[in-house]
Amino acid sequence: MTILDIIENKKNRKELSQEEINFFVQNYTSGIIPDYQISSLLMAIVLNGMTLKEATFLTQSMMHTGKIIDLSEIKGIKVDKHSTGGVGDKVSLVLGPIVASIGAVFAKMSGRGLGHTGGTIDKLESIPGFGCYVNEMQFKKLLKKSNIAIIGQTDDLVPADKKLYALRDVTGTVNSMPLIASSIMSKKLATGSDAILLDVKCGSGAFMKNEKDATELAKWMISIGKKLKKDVRAEITNMDQPLGRMIGNKNEILEAMESLKGNGEPRFMELIYSSSSEILMQAKIVKNKKEAIKLIDDAIKSQKAYKKFIEMINNQGGDSKIICQPQWWNPKYKLIIKANKEGYLRLTNSVVLGTVAMKLGAGRQTKEDIIDNEAGIELVKVSNEYVKKNDPIMILYSSKEIDLSLSKEVWKSIEISKNLKNDPIILNNLK
Amino acid sequence: MTILDIIENKKNRKELSQEEINFFVQNYTSGIIPDYQISSLLMAIVLNGMTLKEATFLTQSMMHTGKIIDLSEIKGIKVDKHSTGGVGDKVSLVLGPIVASIGAVFAKMSGRGLGHTGGTIDKLESIPGFGCYVNEMQFKKLLKKSNIAIIGQTDDLVPADKKLYALRDVTGTVNSMPLIASSIMSKKLATGSDAILLDVKCGSGAFMKNEKDATELAKWMISIGKKLKKDVRAEITNMDQPLGRMIGNKNEILEAMESLKGNGEPRFMELIYSSSSEILMQAKIVKNKKEAIKLIDDAIKSQKAYKKFIEMINNQGGDSKIICQPQWWNPKYKLIIKANKEGYLRLTNSVVLGTVAMKLGAGRQTKEDIIDNEAGIELVKVSNEYVKKNDPIMILYSSKEIDLSLSKEVWKSIEISKNLKNDPIILNNLK
Repeated sequence: MTILDIIENKKNRKELSQEEINFFVQNYTSGIIPDYQISSLLMAIVLNGMTLKEATFLTQSMMHTGKIIDLSEIKGIKVDKHSTGGVGDKVSLVLGPIVASIGAVFAKMSGRGLGHTGGTIDKLESIPGFGCYVNEMQFKKLLKKSNIAIIGQTDDLVPADKKLYALRDVTGTVNSMPLIASSIMSKKLATGSDAILLDVKCGSGAFMKNEKDATELAKWMISIGKKLKKDVRAEITNMDQPLGRMIGNKNEILEAMESLKGNGEPRFMELIYSSSSEILMQAKIVKNKKEAIKLIDDAIKSQKAYKKFIEMINNQGGDSKIICQPQWWNPKYKLIIKANKEGYLRLTNSVVLGTVAMKLGAGRQTKEDIIDNEAGIELVKVSNEYVKKNDPIMILYSSKEIDLSLSKEVWKSIEISKNLKNDPIILNNLK
Repeated sequence: MTILDIIENKKNRKELSQEEINFFVQNYTSGIIPDYQISSLLMAIVLNGMTLKEATFLTQSMMHTGKIIDLSEIKGIKVDKHSTGGVGDKVSLVLGPIVASIGAVFAKMSGRGLGHTGGTIDKLESIPGFGCYVNEMQFKKLLKKSNIAIIGQTDDLVPADKKLYALRDVTGTVNSMPLIASSIMSKKLATGSDAILLDVKCGSGAFMKNEKDATELAKWMISIGKKLKKDVRAEITNMDQPLGRMIGNKNEILEAMESLKGNGEPRFMELIYSSSSEILMQAKIVKNKKEAIKLIDDAIKSQKAYKKFIEMINNQGGDSKIICQPQWWNPKYKLIIKANKEGYLRLTNSVVLGTVAMKLGAGRQTKEDIIDNEAGIELVKVSNEYVKKNDPIMILYSSKEIDLSLSKEVWKSIEISKNLKNDPIILNNLK
């Protein structure tokens, strides 16, 4: 078997065998097969597709190029949640403590943000002392002690995916459902959870621009999960507007805390309730959504969930006292955006807001950029809230003087009109 | 414009502009764009195709990455002939002197052989002293003096094609009609001829395995030629069996000389007459085939063509005396293949014979191999000749002891049957 045979087969629309897939994944990861042969193969995969069988083999093959975490010694069903990435997406920071406080084991590995999307790890690292890089033993210890740990992906996790993704990124071979699905699933499966809830976002701020594509991607991942005997479910959610009222890092931590105390933005909390219910069902703690909602209500009202958040911060070395002080988030510069007329506000284009937040310093243009934890956007008003002329609708924050062009830029995502518009956050549930 | 935009456009089946094609050809040739991005683009081209417009831009763009020979100072129509490569293909060595002796200017750049196909340059270099690498000024001087020069392609001729072909070879992106057509045409057009006759071979020993593909490739090249205002014509010819009676180097030179003296193998001479007639029409020396054949007959009978061959050898430093001596070709080892029954011989698989000749030493397995000029095959009998049991039908030659397995191998290309079978050499003429 040579890489040329494998390229030839994929070019001629033949289904690749497990041996062929293992061959190219292993030999590419170890540096035996050069980039130029794999990029040719990747383009053939993008254009000729893959069967579910091939995508499953690819997922397994990539997963086995690195460390696989074994959580079997921890009792109960270990649950994980994955979002395909969005703007203001602090779901894990709220959902995790909720389900952990109810008894589910929330074992989460998260990534960093790039471009207009934020990353859970970046947000957590805005907390002084918080550590995201722990070894497998410490990860298990935290899960045993507190049912929750949110840690960063280590370098030894699925090295094949890291190398393949970097190549896809520069060879026009990113957008392939089986390649995206196996990239995500290989990482999720390597972290050892039993059940995974996928939040597949669609719309302007998401990787998938429309519901059809998001649904297709979700189906690929659920099918791969089924083949590998994992309980994988998916929510298709809307990302045309940001989640909650905050975009940034410190400010999203504060919003997560407020949400856990019961003061969350209603549309964001709708997603939190839905996702948390699904995960509690996957963890077999509840039988149905009604039971789940009762428990979630109780976890929030009793402050059990909030306390679990503080426990997690303390467990991972974070200073939970300082983040409760009003001066912790204290950006030097702010710029208020005011309504130019009266009516119902509508935020229409979250990629614009994500990009402005990044330019303010809250995100990274390139992987090497350093984040400004003070920077971000506050949405004083969100969609379907009524504003009068000159009411503040948005505040931009930064440690650096704010470029006035950004205050023009945000208007690309703002509409003010006479009418309310129904705008559901959850579009579909799949399993 | 970035290479990623170009890949994206080709992936999405958009027609690439001249600027986009120039961008990737120039920046790849100069080393700015890395292999892995071009191999991804090449696979997208293989799978999504190219329009004639794109293939023409590609031809021009590649052509302009190197030296372009200007033959305008030489009077008359300069003609060139290109074969897509075969076994025993010594056509240029016979056709060239014929048409040059009749008054056409035969300005030919040839390549070397690889694998089972031989190369005109290798055959000529078996003649002691013969020089294939002359500069442009010397090339023109030879053409002015004798109407003929057959020289090797220099490194500064279409460097883009050299680099792209090497990459295609190792990335499964060879078989694309527009890529093959523009590769051939860029080299042909860079050598400055006004009219080109293409011998597009099909069958077991050829690059194109069937007539349909050969015809398609010919049409691509003729169309590119038309767009660039060159008189390009094509013959589709059969390569299931070798051309003539000799496969090798020294022995093919001797067969070419015999053919020029009027003793050529009939099926081979049919091709020589057809191709030479076409070229004489392209050179506007004759109006029709009938006139051409009369002139060719005369050139052979009068030995004008043979003398032109000797003149060319002398012009390019070759020892024309030694090649006329009987002991010039003197292989140390030979092995006779005898008929195992009585009947009409049929040679069915020229790739087998080409490969055996290569293994005997007449060709190269890799570019670095050194050729044994004594090695080769003599076809004592060719297709449709009658043989009795134990009649010699083939002789293998080499400077090294001959591996007996080769004498078994050749039987994969031999059939002996009760019936004659019509087997035309020229399948079609296109312009």
